[in-house]
Amino acid sequence: MQKIKTAVVGASGYTGMELLRLLLMHPNAELSCVTSRQYAGQPLGSIFPRFSQIEGSDLSFTEPDAATIKASGAEVAFLALPHGVAAEYALALLELGVRVVDLSADFRLNDPAVYEEFYGAAHPATELLKEAVYGMPELKGRSESIATARLVASPGCYPTSIILPLVPLLEKGLIDPQSIVTCSMSGVSGAGKTSNTLFSFCEANESVRAYSVPKHRHLSEIEQELSIAAGEQVAMSFTPHLVPTHNGICTTTSAVIKGSADEVSAALNNAYADQPFVRLLGEGQTADTKNVTRTNFIDIGWAVDERTGRVLLFSSEDNLGKGAAGQAVQSFNLMTGLAPKAGLQNI
Amino acid sequence: MQKIKTAVVGASGYTGMELLRLLLMHPNAELSCVTSRQYAGQPLGSIFPRFSQIEGSDLSFTEPDAATIKASGAEVAFLALPHGVAAEYALALLELGVRVVDLSADFRLNDPAVYEEFYGAAHPATELLKEAVYGMPELKGRSESIATARLVASPGCYPTSIILPLVPLLEKGLIDPQSIVTCSMSGVSGAGKTSNTLFSFCEANESVRAYSVPKHRHLSEIEQELSIAAGEQVAMSFTPHLVPTHNGICTTTSAVIKGSADEVSAALNNAYADQPFVRLLGEGQTADTKNVTRTNFIDIGWAVDERTGRVLLFSSEDNLGKGAAGQAVQSFNLMTGLAPKAGLQNI
Amino acid sequence: MQKIKTAVVGASGYTGMELLRLLLMHPNAELSCVTSRQYAGQPLGSIFPRFSQIEGSDLSFTEPDAATIKASGAEVAFLALPHGVAAEYALALLELGVRVVDLSADFRLNDPAVYEEFYGAAHPATELLKEAVYGMPELKGRSESIATARLVASPGCYPTSIILPLVPLLEKGLIDPQSIVTCSMSGVSGAGKTSNTLFSFCEANESVRAYSVPKHRHLSEIEQELSIAAGEQVAMSFTPHLVPTHNGICTTTSAVIKGSADEVSAALNNAYADQPFVRLLGEGQTADTKNVTRTNFIDIGWAVDERTGRVLLFSSEDNLGKGAAGQAVQSFNLMTGLAPKAGLQNI
Amino acid sequence: MQKIKTAVVGASGYTGMELLRLLLMHPNAELSCVTSRQYAGQPLGSIFPRFSQIEGSDLSFTEPDAATIKASGAEVAFLALPHGVAAEYALALLELGVRVVDLSADFRLNDPAVYEEFYGAAHPATELLKEAVYGMPELKGRSESIATARLVASPGCYPTSIILPLVPLLEKGLIDPQSIVTCSMSGVSGAGKTSNTLFSFCEANESVRAYSVPKHRHLSEIEQELSIAAGEQVAMSFTPHLVPTHNGICTTTSAVIKGSADEVSAALNNAYADQPFVRLLGEGQTADTKNVTRTNFIDIGWAVDERTGRVLLFSSEDNLGKGAAGQAVQSFNLMTGLAPKAGLQNI
Repeated sequence: MQKIKTAVVGASGYTGMELLRLLLMHPNAELSCVTSRQYAGQPLGSIFPRFSQIEGSDLSFTEPDAATIKASGAEVAFLALPHGVAAEYALALLELGVRVVDLSADFRLNDPAVYEEFYGAAHPATELLKEAVYGMPELKGRSESIATARLVASPGCYPTSIILPLVPLLEKGLIDPQSIVTCSMSGVSGAGKTSNTLFSFCEANESVRAYSVPKHRHLSEIEQELSIAAGEQVAMSFTPHLVPTHNGICTTTSAVIKGSADEVSAALNNAYADQPFVRLLGEGQTADTKNVTRTNFIDIGWAVDERTGRVLLFSSEDNLGKGAAGQAVQSFNLMTGLAPKAGLQNI
Repeated sequence: MQKIKTAVVGASGYTGMELLRLLLMHPNAELSCVTSRQYAGQPLGSIFPRFSQIEGSDLSFTEPDAATIKASGAEVAFLALPHGVAAEYALALLELGVRVVDLSADFRLNDPAVYEEFYGAAHPATELLKEAVYGMPELKGRSESIATARLVASPGCYPTSIILPLVPLLEKGLIDPQSIVTCSMSGVSGAGKTSNTLFSFCEANESVRAYSVPKHRHLSEIEQELSIAAGEQVAMSFTPHLVPTHNGICTTTSAVIKGSADEVSAALNNAYADQPFVRLLGEGQTADTKNVTRTNFIDIGWAVDERTGRVLLFSSEDNLGKGAAGQAVQSFNLMTGLAPKAGLQNI
Repeated sequence: MQKIKTAVVGASGYTGMELLRLLLMHPNAELSCVTSRQYAGQPLGSIFPRFSQIEGSDLSFTEPDAATIKASGAEVAFLALPHGVAAEYALALLELGVRVVDLSADFRLNDPAVYEEFYGAAHPATELLKEAVYGMPELKGRSESIATARLVASPGCYPTSIILPLVPLLEKGLIDPQSIVTCSMSGVSGAGKTSNTLFSFCEANESVRAYSVPKHRHLSEIEQELSIAAGEQVAMSFTPHLVPTHNGICTTTSAVIKGSADEVSAALNNAYADQPFVRLLGEGQTADTKNVTRTNFIDIGWAVDERTGRVLLFSSEDNLGKGAAGQAVQSFNLMTGLAPKAGLQNI
Repeated sequence: MQKIKTAVVGASGYTGMELLRLLLMHPNAELSCVTSRQYAGQPLGSIFPRFSQIEGSDLSFTEPDAATIKASGAEVAFLALPHGVAAEYALALLELGVRVVDLSADFRLNDPAVYEEFYGAAHPATELLKEAVYGMPELKGRSESIATARLVASPGCYPTSIILPLVPLLEKGLIDPQSIVTCSMSGVSGAGKTSNTLFSFCEANESVRAYSVPKHRHLSEIEQELSIAAGEQVAMSFTPHLVPTHNGICTTTSAVIKGSADEVSAALNNAYADQPFVRLLGEGQTADTKNVTRTNFIDIGWAVDERTGRVLLFSSEDNLGKGAAGQAVQSFNLMTGLAPKAGLQNI
């Protein structure tokens, strides 16, 4: 089978690097173009020494330019760009007939007013919002929409770990939608490849702390998807924490339970037993980031606390994997008719 | 001034080691006896190479025996023993007139039935429960009780980080006592000096996970103290997590707010502005473990989330420091009439 | 193409786990049998949650028994067993016609007296020593011997990082063979999956130290291969260190130079430019473990110090990868006529 | 006793922070002035939250100005400034009668030509070189020189760990001075408080690598002191490595032995048995960074390798402690007639 040509736009950060890793190893995909203003002209393997001498790593970075990307033969372009910037490239690429998987926040929200509230600027391309599909293939009907989408808005890292465990319970009315409290812990790669001293080894190691409280930007897309599932507007409490690991997100969510422990288990099993990238650990089990790093899996466990009448949901994923690049490749597989697991069986 | 003689019983674990560290450096205390079955006969400095050649570290471990401890001249004995075992030593030492600061769970609970529920065995010395003082000096009237106590039950690590931020709000009726949800993240030393493979470097590094859900033993003492403050029986949701740091606990607590943000700030300031080991970071600030490790400080920040009507409390402490050995020395200072900060100004 | 059936004997440690990882993802290999006394009867995916829901991970562990392994159809068995134990299984498997890649030290030494000197016991199967091939495919003529071998002795982790940079220089007479001084730093997984408190997170993190001085067991195989290359008996100084990483070995070797910097570069280039798993970083470059972890690459840099007349060699590899499981799979590919890079392109 | 007033100039980096920590806790010293261009006007406790509410931490940073420092009453000023910059402040302060402990490289070398060779610029204040004392109190006659010095050049971190174990052996002629090969591993704080992405958590964690090869700047002062001890010009091989710890240096040095193992032990014992900050671990023992971090100790072990005729020296110290701030305070105690251990008994 001919490999499908793909481009990665903005490939110099950690999400871009993980995309490159997945696409270099993907049996049915080929990198035809990788862009980076900073590294233009240099081969991929010289910037990322890990990739050196791997087949495909002699490709050189180019300036990010829609025409160049199109000319490379890319059918799908992945955008690993800051929000605001991504929209501009998406517009140009779609115009040239290149389908887009955008890993920024630009097309995740249905409502431009919510975008403006959370991102502090008018939405840069409202005309595309209707057409963009929030790329979480495990949600009902979503994989079909992704398959035919021109523009997929790939979800954020925290949202993936929070939305997936909650949606089946909200859909079945098993929890009070207004009682959700979530704490997440993320590895330092979530801050990106940054020169900020706060994320230096000496500052981040032996440090654990909450941040971006009480209104992290990701709340916008989390509440959007939870509201759809609940059939009512959901507001929830979300506190992200930084912990000294390279990658991985561990999320603990609790909510007032309205059904039984068995109903909770049944709802999760019905929703995900057949999903290739959701691993249900069972009742009483917690999820460990070390089992999911560098994979596209999300692990989910749960427990019912009779004493407080709350259900606890435990999830773990790789913030760069299922929380970013892995999930984007999952959408890519659907968009191009490849096997769902293609290129995502690395462990 | 003559130094006060002290003993550390069960000094071979991490809490014991931290007690030794604090007492070796304490300007007004002297180690007259350290016990460890495992290390009896060996000088302290040979078992803990860090302490070698520090004044006082040529003291040898002895077998744990109440008469030996008494004979050493110790006025106060710190018990760093497993629960169940500690009670036995407390009884024998008190009988000989040695005052006791117990760092186990044996005397923290007022109600032996709660002990049995959470620790799975009948309480070993119910007759002492009434007299034991829960040694959290920042609680109202507590420092006075500690000063005259024969037996202080020094609080657990998680409880300290949870109780201190909540008590002023519960006392002022500023939160709904039945709405409390807490997530804590602890460094690996919280598991003790263990040969369990789960806590080996390769298993614990790059790993973040919840554990002991939904009913961790520490809930018993947490809910006891919160109930006193609230004036009603409190049940709360508490999820501890293991994160790859040596020490430090980061706790995030949320509850439905019943007052204003200003009232929250005022309550915390009124309660703790004059406390030497509570550092109030202010509204909108989170607490970082790296600022409190190896100290007796607890740092507390807070935020009000108007969107969800919840208040968020952020606290950090050293699980071995304010959460264990530091707080025990704080009680010791009160019991012996020393300056409150004596020996606790290390940073 | 039919996949080649393989067995992993003693699959419960870190080397075994890495072998499983590589073989589960290998496009031309299939696991037909995995053994572990401890885990017999349990599916692979339940013991190693990372592997759960990966194709092939529903295979269950069996008791380690040669007949069972043979009956599974395995053509090649990998032995991830302690030295001494491995020999016994090798004998039984070879008798049944199963070819063996042994990752223990049992067949690495040509001389049973050296084995006895370094391993403190008589060699358990001297009759096999002549036939065993030291499985370092980059050495001259070695890949041909491996291709036809019944029994491959896969090299140790430290030895791989030390032998490969030195051999071309010794063969060309560019260094004084008696002047070699090596320091290596290994991640904690080198100690195996152990319950020894020394390797617990709290003891191993923030700790760096030398160990096994001055005569680490691996010196035996290192000096054996260096002596062959030098054409004289070599004795060298080797100091291993433990550093707080999961995996990776960083090795720095120095020796008195007898040629020019250009000759050093030429010798290394001649030897390795065409080798798929050796990446020559060039003169003045050092090697970083982070670029090789979870790969089968060894990275090599070098520098000439005119001030001291010494050449410095810098190498990095994954102790579990090129230093163990990766190199074993590399031999397996040669033994079975597969493409050299098959299954070893993960990054 | 009146506390001695001191100043810390350039207190915003890790060495400055460690100096502040030691001086805040020093029973006989008082901070009268701390300078930082970046933080001028802000209290020390607000920049370093660890120090908040510690006595003395309400002092505010001032602009670095010699007159201000003098006016504060400081008798001794510690310079934690980049090389080149430090000399300028030293000159101005000495002129005003303030004694100086300089932690930069500016006054460590006796020969301005060597300074120029290694630091790439003409020496900024050659007239002071003769008077400056290389502040390593354990060297013969050095503590007396330090006691009366106006200007102490406090040694570098790597040099301290290398010079101390070697000097007694060189003085006794027990090793070949031209055969010395050293590998050191340093924690990331050695790179300073930097925004360089190379030292970010994600780049430095799980990474081990050599750097600055083959001619690190510290070789200049190392070889200067070794040459004095050997009575001949010494050139040696030194390779520093970066390892993922916060602080700590582990150094392994080997050299061709010219005496017996007993003579080595005797030489080290004679030199250091009475030194309060050198802990001799004995023959066959290695040194672990975790035992010396946050202390002023250097631990030294050794081994003789009969096979290669080399002696191995193992040393560990805190790069910020005995390798920088601790050793500077040790000199300060000598300069001001305080007890040698004053303020350096923290563990």
